Amino acid sequence: MKRALAFVALCLVSTLAHADEGMWLFNRPPAKQIKEGYGFELTPAWLEHLQKSAVRISTGGSGSLVSKDGLVMTNHHVGSDKIAELSTKERDLLKDGFHAKTLAEELKCPNIEMDVLWTIEDVTAQVEATAKPGMSNAQKSAARRAKMTELESEAKKASGLKCEIVTLWQGARYHLYSYKTWDDVRLVFAPEKAIAFFGGDTDNFEFPRYDLDVCFFRIYENGKPLQAEHHLEWSANGSTEGDLVFVAGHPGRTERLFTMSHLEYMRDFQYPLAMRTLWRREVLLSTFMGRSEENRRVGEDEYFGVQNSRKARTGIFAGLLDPTFMGQKFRTELELRSAVAANPDWSAKWGDGWDLIAQSKKIQREMAVRFGALGGGGMGLGGDLFAKAVTIVRWADESQKPDGQRLREYRSTAKDSIERSLYSEAPIYIDLEVERMASSLQNMAELLGGGDPTVVRVLAGKGPGPRAEELVRGSKLADIAERKRLFEGGAAALADCNDPLIQLARMLDAESRLQRKRFEEEVDPLEKEGYSKVAASIFALKGEDQYPDATFTLRLTHGTVKGYEAGGKKIAPYTNFAGLYERANERGNVYPFEVPSSWVKARAALNPSTPFNFVSTNDIIGGNSGSPVVNKAGQVVGLIFDGNIESLVLDIGYDDKQARAVSVDSRAIAESLLKVYSASALHAELMGGRAGG
Amino acid sequence: MKRALAFVALCLVSTLAHADEGMWLFNRPPAKQIKEGYGFELTPAWLEHLQKSAVRISTGGSGSLVSKDGLVMTNHHVGSDKIAELSTKERDLLKDGFHAKTLAEELKCPNIEMDVLWTIEDVTAQVEATAKPGMSNAQKSAARRAKMTELESEAKKASGLKCEIVTLWQGARYHLYSYKTWDDVRLVFAPEKAIAFFGGDTDNFEFPRYDLDVCFFRIYENGKPLQAEHHLEWSANGSTEGDLVFVAGHPGRTERLFTMSHLEYMRDFQYPLAMRTLWRREVLLSTFMGRSEENRRVGEDEYFGVQNSRKARTGIFAGLLDPTFMGQKFRTELELRSAVAANPDWSAKWGDGWDLIAQSKKIQREMAVRFGALGGGGMGLGGDLFAKAVTIVRWADESQKPDGQRLREYRSTAKDSIERSLYSEAPIYIDLEVERMASSLQNMAELLGGGDPTVVRVLAGKGPGPRAEELVRGSKLADIAERKRLFEGGAAALADCNDPLIQLARMLDAESRLQRKRFEEEVDPLEKEGYSKVAASIFALKGEDQYPDATFTLRLTHGTVKGYEAGGKKIAPYTNFAGLYERANERGNVYPFEVPSSWVKARAALNPSTPFNFVSTNDIIGGNSGSPVVNKAGQVVGLIFDGNIESLVLDIGYDDKQARAVSVDSRAIAESLLKVYSASALHAELMGGRAGG
Repeated sequence: MKRALAFVALCLVSTLAHADEGMWLFNRPPAKQIKEGYGFELTPAWLEHLQKSAVRISTGGSGSLVSKDGLVMTNHHVGSDKIAELSTKERDLLKDGFHAKTLAEELKCPNIEMDVLWTIEDVTAQVEATAKPGMSNAQKSAARRAKMTELESEAKKASGLKCEIVTLWQGARYHLYSYKTWDDVRLVFAPEKAIAFFGGDTDNFEFPRYDLDVCFFRIYENGKPLQAEHHLEWSANGSTEGDLVFVAGHPGRTERLFTMSHLEYMRDFQYPLAMRTLWRREVLLSTFMGRSEENRRVGEDEYFGVQNSRKARTGIFAGLLDPTFMGQKFRTELELRSAVAANPDWSAKWGDGWDLIAQSKKIQREMAVRFGALGGGGMGLGGDLFAKAVTIVRWADESQKPDGQRLREYRSTAKDSIERSLYSEAPIYIDLEVERMASSLQNMAELLGGGDPTVVRVLAGKGPGPRAEELVRGSKLADIAERKRLFEGGAAALADCNDPLIQLARMLDAESRLQRKRFEEEVDPLEKEGYSKVAASIFALKGEDQYPDATFTLRLTHGTVKGYEAGGKKIAPYTNFAGLYERANERGNVYPFEVPSSWVKARAALNPSTPFNFVSTNDIIGGNSGSPVVNKAGQVVGLIFDGNIESLVLDIGYDDKQARAVSVDSRAIAESLLKVYSASALHAELMGGRAGG
Repeated sequence: MKRALAFVALCLVSTLAHADEGMWLFNRPPAKQIKEGYGFELTPAWLEHLQKSAVRISTGGSGSLVSKDGLVMTNHHVGSDKIAELSTKERDLLKDGFHAKTLAEELKCPNIEMDVLWTIEDVTAQVEATAKPGMSNAQKSAARRAKMTELESEAKKASGLKCEIVTLWQGARYHLYSYKTWDDVRLVFAPEKAIAFFGGDTDNFEFPRYDLDVCFFRIYENGKPLQAEHHLEWSANGSTEGDLVFVAGHPGRTERLFTMSHLEYMRDFQYPLAMRTLWRREVLLSTFMGRSEENRRVGEDEYFGVQNSRKARTGIFAGLLDPTFMGQKFRTELELRSAVAANPDWSAKWGDGWDLIAQSKKIQREMAVRFGALGGGGMGLGGDLFAKAVTIVRWADESQKPDGQRLREYRSTAKDSIERSLYSEAPIYIDLEVERMASSLQNMAELLGGGDPTVVRVLAGKGPGPRAEELVRGSKLADIAERKRLFEGGAAALADCNDPLIQLARMLDAESRLQRKRFEEEVDPLEKEGYSKVAASIFALKGEDQYPDATFTLRLTHGTVKGYEAGGKKIAPYTNFAGLYERANERGNVYPFEVPSSWVKARAALNPSTPFNFVSTNDIIGGNSGSPVVNKAGQVVGLIFDGNIESLVLDIGYDDKQARAVSVDSRAIAESLLKVYSASALHAELMGGRAGG
């Protein structure tokens, strides 16, 4: 190991984790690092309190409980699809904002779940025990999947909690996470999108920023505000430059431990395909939105989501295409492989790990386009209605099988979530559904070729546009009662169902399953086997005090409030209210730099030097949106809502020179609630009061 | 033939040309069709007058001489890149419009050529005589190319005109076109873009429309307004529904005669690649433009160009993906092939034509991605500066060779055009150049893979972004004097030139040439050979009274002013001024539906029932933009500026049920010049007066 390290030192590349690196597991916190680096002790009680105040939101973001009465704080952009769903042609809550002055005015959200992580248990031994020697990799993989479903089911029965086994280290560890979960969630407050997303796509992933990217929901239990066992207090004074701050949230997915062959696969196959899809969707939505004011409202939320993904992926892709970055990755891998090769025992046990992964990627390259075109396990065509058709068709089959033999997402423990999603009252916009379907039909034809037998069957003698019209407008699935009838009726109800989307899902089902089977038998087991060996060699070399790649589960990160340099300029860590008005003025106060009228009116009342947004070195990525930023006392000092452009590469590797997490300052939230929105009851609740003031 | 026709009739598909189909050659006009269909005689004098009044514009559009003093009318969107080049941060001519009240105020355009077709000569026999029996297809192809260059050179010497051999019927016929050409072209009048492109991308390719998509240039000769031998008169009364109208213009490229294997190649390879590029560019430009008001101005013209292409290609692609359309093509091809197979003589001579084309497409499929990534004969990287570097590097080599051995675009007769383009004073926007280069570097990496040796060499150890910065900002090619020094200095000047863009062009040159050589030796000759056989069999079966695919050369089309039905609604052929204000009102008068202030002020003065835009059945496509629409007397009644969405498929097949050409009505032009723009001198000149009123 020493030699390897020396080699790396010669290459001027450090393999040591940077000071504030790490998205740590709550059951394996970076206590030592923080003690050594900051002289602060992470106690079990401190950790439990933060863990049980952190919220995972089913729409793909993070939040935190911030009052005794179940108030949840998250980002406006995390809540925005719900805000959009609660909007109508007459009442545009994204544009105008929303404020429930009483509990009675709070708006119930369709199809949302909020989870709080309650317990973590390492079940690696039980899962691994089912993978017997002599089994093929595919058999091991199937055995593990079956065991995971079984363990989840047992745990749910025992605790009544929502239970999910999380695959860590790409398969080297399995942890059983049990969640308290709620689905009665109501919208309490949202500012106007113009201030929540001031600067729009232009300033997204940039700093300095001036965004009030916050909204509040409330969890209800048995029709009453949740009496939360834990919630975060509001800091009286906020933060100061140099402060140690923590973030508890749910980073979505990182690829830091990926091997070179895997990164190359991402670079040469996965990302080019993904970028193409994002460009297509961005153009489609922009065109759709241009057609009318109503289309603009309907498409806006998805449009910003696509722009956000496109920008994020562009940043990651830039990292993959950066020879310096890839060179570092190569040298780090070489170091590890050399260390393994130098130890005969390790070499025998783990030496082929990298080759197994490379082999899995080779197979994946062969099947990537077709697999992608068929939806990578789903069915690859667009729109909410088709997704519901797929759920109905697959549930009819899967629900007849024992749990261990089902596709994972259709296991019996998932039924509640499936039903909630299927029967959601969220509006479905038929015109947009047609566009999505047409675009996805064209996409399938592009990927597979217009003469491909599947494409020919799917198009059924029509071009993508007319075929999409026929499929979407001919379907009755927009009617919740019809979805319910088919879902509950199962195979019998489907047998004589002539709904065109149901028929399409049935037509694609077999081939899609074949593709997925191939992936699950030929690619995934090789990859998991490979990574468990790579992880084992990392543990042997460096100990288990590591953090695994992100998995949209709860992680703890630490960092300091700190500016940085970019383009030769020093960038201060805080912006303030005065800066907002300056930036708007500089851009002619036109969209997306238009200050909403509420903020124009309140300008005189606001303290211009109140900190608005700030940056810190916390190791965060997408999925962390809406995470609370807390001080050493565990009090809220900020709300994560973005990373700067230099942080996008964090998906594949940490850097603290320029990469920064971007937060709304708690002081800006408190002051604007009082002075811009006259939300004194909400403000009082945050300061320790009860719901309703 | 009779049996084949009967077969087709059974299939309910007509192979007869539709009534108004055809982009006819001026030396093979549809005299018979027009006589029979409309009782109107196309006389040689009538044709010559129209031909010599029609203008080809080097930026890729059409126009016409409309006064004795060399006034040229075209579309605003054809002139817009020149209008953009004449704009500065302080003077935005796209936004504000332009009106030269005197000759002295007319603005000279950088880098533009206007051509008028003077003579046409069939040189097929001379070209074909060089392709001797026993030669390989590649040898034949090379011999033909050399002969074409030689004939052009001789013709130029003899006439002093600009001479180009046009390859018709994909190689079955070669016609020598000789042009009068001018490069002193000045901007006379342009309305505000807001009215020229009212409705923006949303209404582009739609009807009803309300666009004043017109601008006027003036050709100068020896520093004085051109005294035109021919020009079109203005019609006193415009057109009426049902009128026979003609269009003389330069349709860019059609693919109507393409065989199935060629159409499938387009559908499965060419279009998916092209769409991807367009989406990428559209997103790139939209992001770039969002960053500042100046960026918006700089990027706007290219942005609309990309949106226009994307929309156009989407329409064509829809045709390629339409099984009904492709089924018709298949049956038409089957009919022709059956007729050839049934005749032993034809079969021996032409029977393998389709297979040769299929074989060429097979090779092209193999090389498509790499060939595309390397620019398909150019060098595949983005930006104006790099294009200039390529020109300089290649000219240094090519200018040393005899004409017949050069790459076609560097033949000695092209030197004037090359220099004009290279030394153009059109502004170069460095920030946009960096974006384009970065995007193209990323594109190359996506297509070839990040580990490809060429990609590795091109990136030179950096990611696409930083590498683009280094290349563009490190280059001195923005300086015209430097370009001149290198171009004139040739190989010697290049040998010790360390300009990074020059070095990059030199680095890519060899591989790009190899790809091109392979295309020119393996793909192109097979294809040409194939098509000349297919064309010969069409001539044998149907006679030579056909029109070849479009080649951005002058064509004549005929049609009638006629509404159509869409979505169950009858669409009237004319819109009027009143409709403009209604449409703006309906869309809240916000961009891109904002009526400019000049039109708001003039509203009361305008006659609300003046026809504004109209549709006709003329067979036009992209490249026809700016073409004059004339009545039987050869007088201007309109100005082509668009086709409806149903017309996009005209690239690959004609239809007159819904496809319509869209024109600005001559009466709208005349009235708005007087009443909105107080351009009485210009109006008087159109009505038969002289320049300057």
